Amino acid sequence: LFLLGTGVVGGTLLKIIKDQASKLFERQLFNLQVCGIANIESMLIRPDGIELNNWQKTLEKKGLNIDLDSYCQQAMDLNLKHSVFIDCTASDQTSEWYPRFLKAGIHVVTPNKKANTQEMAVYKKLHKSASSRGVKFRYETNVGAGLPVIQTIQDLISAGDNIHKIEGILSGTLSYIFNNYTSKDSFSAIVKNARDKGYTEPDPREDLNGMDVARKILILSREMGWELNITDVDVENLSPVESMKAKNIENYFELLQKYDDQMRDRIGKIEKSGNRLRYIARAEGGKLSAGLKEVDSEHPFYGLQGSDNIVAIYSDYYPIPLVIRGAGAGAEVTAAGVFADILKTISG
Amino acid sequence: LFLLGTGVVGGTLLKIIKDQASKLFERQLFNLQVCGIANIESMLIRPDGIELNNWQKTLEKKGLNIDLDSYCQQAMDLNLKHSVFIDCTASDQTSEWYPRFLKAGIHVVTPNKKANTQEMAVYKKLHKSASSRGVKFRYETNVGAGLPVIQTIQDLISAGDNIHKIEGILSGTLSYIFNNYTSKDSFSAIVKNARDKGYTEPDPREDLNGMDVARKILILSREMGWELNITDVDVENLSPVESMKAKNIENYFELLQKYDDQMRDRIGKIEKSGNRLRYIARAEGGKLSAGLKEVDSEHPFYGLQGSDNIVAIYSDYYPIPLVIRGAGAGAEVTAAGVFADILKTISG
Repeated sequence: LFLLGTGVVGGTLLKIIKDQASKLFERQLFNLQVCGIANIESMLIRPDGIELNNWQKTLEKKGLNIDLDSYCQQAMDLNLKHSVFIDCTASDQTSEWYPRFLKAGIHVVTPNKKANTQEMAVYKKLHKSASSRGVKFRYETNVGAGLPVIQTIQDLISAGDNIHKIEGILSGTLSYIFNNYTSKDSFSAIVKNARDKGYTEPDPREDLNGMDVARKILILSREMGWELNITDVDVENLSPVESMKAKNIENYFELLQKYDDQMRDRIGKIEKSGNRLRYIARAEGGKLSAGLKEVDSEHPFYGLQGSDNIVAIYSDYYPIPLVIRGAGAGAEVTAAGVFADILKTISG
Repeated sequence: LFLLGTGVVGGTLLKIIKDQASKLFERQLFNLQVCGIANIESMLIRPDGIELNNWQKTLEKKGLNIDLDSYCQQAMDLNLKHSVFIDCTASDQTSEWYPRFLKAGIHVVTPNKKANTQEMAVYKKLHKSASSRGVKFRYETNVGAGLPVIQTIQDLISAGDNIHKIEGILSGTLSYIFNNYTSKDSFSAIVKNARDKGYTEPDPREDLNGMDVARKILILSREMGWELNITDVDVENLSPVESMKAKNIENYFELLQKYDDQMRDRIGKIEKSGNRLRYIARAEGGKLSAGLKEVDSEHPFYGLQGSDNIVAIYSDYYPIPLVIRGAGAGAEVTAAGVFADILKTISG
């Protein structure tokens, strides 16, 4: 295994590998070895495996200054059997390396969405690099973290199912906000509260602009063979236009407050009808959208709580939808999902 | 592929294979060939593959009288590369062959629950036959048909998660009955209605005795490493004791009617408190149970509709449960699940 990125997900993944590798070895299944660790500062390659009990110290003391190209090239040049490259960064530079890895027979596992949201032509080339060589490119954690969303769609499609519609609440932040927002609250206060609880990005505009959700529904639609790009998603930005220019977060919240009354009117009307407001991503009839939608009590998203993600798949086989729900973000569930992808890759 | 059983699931599976094999071949992924088809009457083996456009006629005309041992032995003797044996029967004789197939390097895929509910010692031996040889034994459709329940549990366990509790509504029949039963109805009439709609077995006692649900929660608990047997499941039988002796179905429903008032009292009290009644399988604290439980509006099973199955997994990684919901029975979803298992087996 060659890991890039040792942040919350990469770090938790190393913990899981350390704990599970010995069990897999005892059961004579695999001998997992982490042969490379790199982050934004340093890189370390050890063909015989890196001792994971104190990789931080080893990386600090023995690591070289990071050079992404050199790290990737070394991983390839070593030409070790059953190599897996694991990209736990949010960078878009790394995805340029994926086709090269795949062509060299190195599997790629990643929670990073960049490669799968690239321009369609590049995306197709990448996926062809994997499938034509029997090399694996796995990215279950691109959508819903550890929830089995992508594999389920792939399984249905490969068994000849015809998916009519996919709907999802694909942002933990927007899930939390609309599971809690009522006409008694001010919208800006709910957003502030979500930020204080650590549910949002440091700059909540990155959640409220809906682009992360748009990228996720694009990825799911591409699993169905739809040839669309990110610019084809009709996205509702929940931050008012002028707030995009806000100098700082305080200033942003002041601007957001101006829209509290408008939002209160909207939620008030919906409450009266007994319905609820949800930020929903949708793929249907060849069109992709992400935005606020009203749902009634019969809808599978009506009773959502906390900051859960939820996905509903409507198809020939599942006219009443197949629904998957649970935490869709967080270091543990994401790292566990990446680890499951690694095991599926090497157990092949 | 060697198929045993051409009933609703096996027959639908052959339809899916016929439609999908050419697509997989065009994409240069696999060349799927069905080299054996057998059912309760006939068997046919063709090492070069059976033409699937009219397998029924070929089997009828060219097939030999069924001899299970001879069919299985021939599948082994042919010694074809990447052989997969698919058991779409409900028989318990076939599972005796699984360890022999696995030892011979033949993968086994099945929706049949018999092998996985055998005595613990036999179960362990069977699973060891697979894991120690890197041969696959896949049975995702044992629980919830095509819903990704077993794989999800396996993924969590292998990533070091600690599952505290699994709860499920694992019978489409019992789901339908309790999603529809209110104090305005008589319980026996609801059961009759479910039978008329084709939701129950021809003899509804087979659904109402809870044993099918008990087998499913046993299988899930064994995925967590619990070493329990079917006799360890505390099962509530919904048919009154004396009805087990009923001579025929009419007589059974007469006996069931006697308990309508008692059941109406029970559901009436629960309705008043705002709760609902569900037939729930549960694995928690080393104990397995299947029976009627009251759930409040916060419970993930409260809003269940139709005849859906639902499973909730509570763990260290998912303190708020991971929930999977959808059709848990039916020819199409089961056959699609079996097909997905076949693809995962051979794409390894």
